[in-house]
Amino acid sequence: MQNITRIAVNPRMSGAVVYGGVVSLSGQVAIDHRGGPVADQVREVLTRIDDLLQEARSDRSRLLTATILLSDFAIMPEFNAAWDAWIVPGCTPTRTSMQVVLASPAYALEVVVTAATD
Amino acid sequence: MQNITRIAVNPRMSGAVVYGGVVSLSGQVAIDHRGGPVADQVREVLTRIDDLLQEARSDRSRLLTATILLSDFAIMPEFNAAWDAWIVPGCTPTRTSMQVVLASPAYALEVVVTAATD
Amino acid sequence: MQNITRIAVNPRMSGAVVYGGVVSLSGQVAIDHRGGPVADQVREVLTRIDDLLQEARSDRSRLLTATILLSDFAIMPEFNAAWDAWIVPGCTPTRTSMQVVLASPAYALEVVVTAATD
Repeated sequence: MQNITRIAVNPRMSGAVVYGGVVSLSGQVAIDHRGGPVADQVREVLTRIDDLLQEARSDRSRLLTATILLSDFAIMPEFNAAWDAWIVPGCTPTRTSMQVVLASPAYALEVVVTAATD
Repeated sequence: MQNITRIAVNPRMSGAVVYGGVVSLSGQVAIDHRGGPVADQVREVLTRIDDLLQEARSDRSRLLTATILLSDFAIMPEFNAAWDAWIVPGCTPTRTSMQVVLASPAYALEVVVTAATD
Repeated sequence: MQNITRIAVNPRMSGAVVYGGVVSLSGQVAIDHRGGPVADQVREVLTRIDDLLQEARSDRSRLLTATILLSDFAIMPEFNAAWDAWIVPGCTPTRTSMQVVLASPAYALEVVVTAATD
């Protein structure tokens, strides 16, 4: 039986779960910049992903999948500009994007990723 | 080549699929309580998850990820109350929640999980 | 450390990523039939999935999970007719379906799958 490692655990959810060589992250939102400019929200979301990946002994070069939830597709060009600068060339994950209603109208986006770990 | 085990198979989909130490469940809705009170729907959905996890030799303490689809975020507090009572402390999965249109307006929620198996 | 194999890589995303015996595909849309009849879009999406699975040394008989994003649930009967003819009996994946806003109103559907590989 393989081990499950849970990261940033609270009584309702974990920030990340590592199992079988894969780390899955909870959907990341811009808690500190909620209601703020899209650029700030995107930067915070990507930084939160970097931080959780690091805790899981992974990093953005080992991303496997990304699901991008937007409150409005109008922000996709701005998201993509930040994403393209952040992502490691040649190491791009799969992507699926959709517009949905997020937990709060103060959030412009939520990003869900999986990555390979040791 | 690893084996794939399919559970609750019908001509269109499987209720659960086990592969590589992970069981993935189809999105679970409250078939018996469709159109019923949210509390009843949540209870049925969580029971259906318990049952499928058991068939896959897993259980709610081994959850890896949960995606919570709500027809209206207004029911989130009621969902969370049931979730918090159901989940095993210290064994919380990742969570991603979003409001979408579900297959029928009679469904208040649909929950998709993955879990570790032997 | 297991290898990551990326397929149909561009600077923003990969069409598919293989890791740990599983191939994950990006959400597939009907690029050639955008704005076209639903039947044509469904056929193109399923063909794109077949092609990517083949590049990943997998095939539709080894599907694990499918997430079906529709721009309108009204097309579900038409989708299901094509799906039921395409899927391999006894080898059905898990399914989760939802109505969301897709990247373009010209797209009627987007399908995301995972499958087992060698």
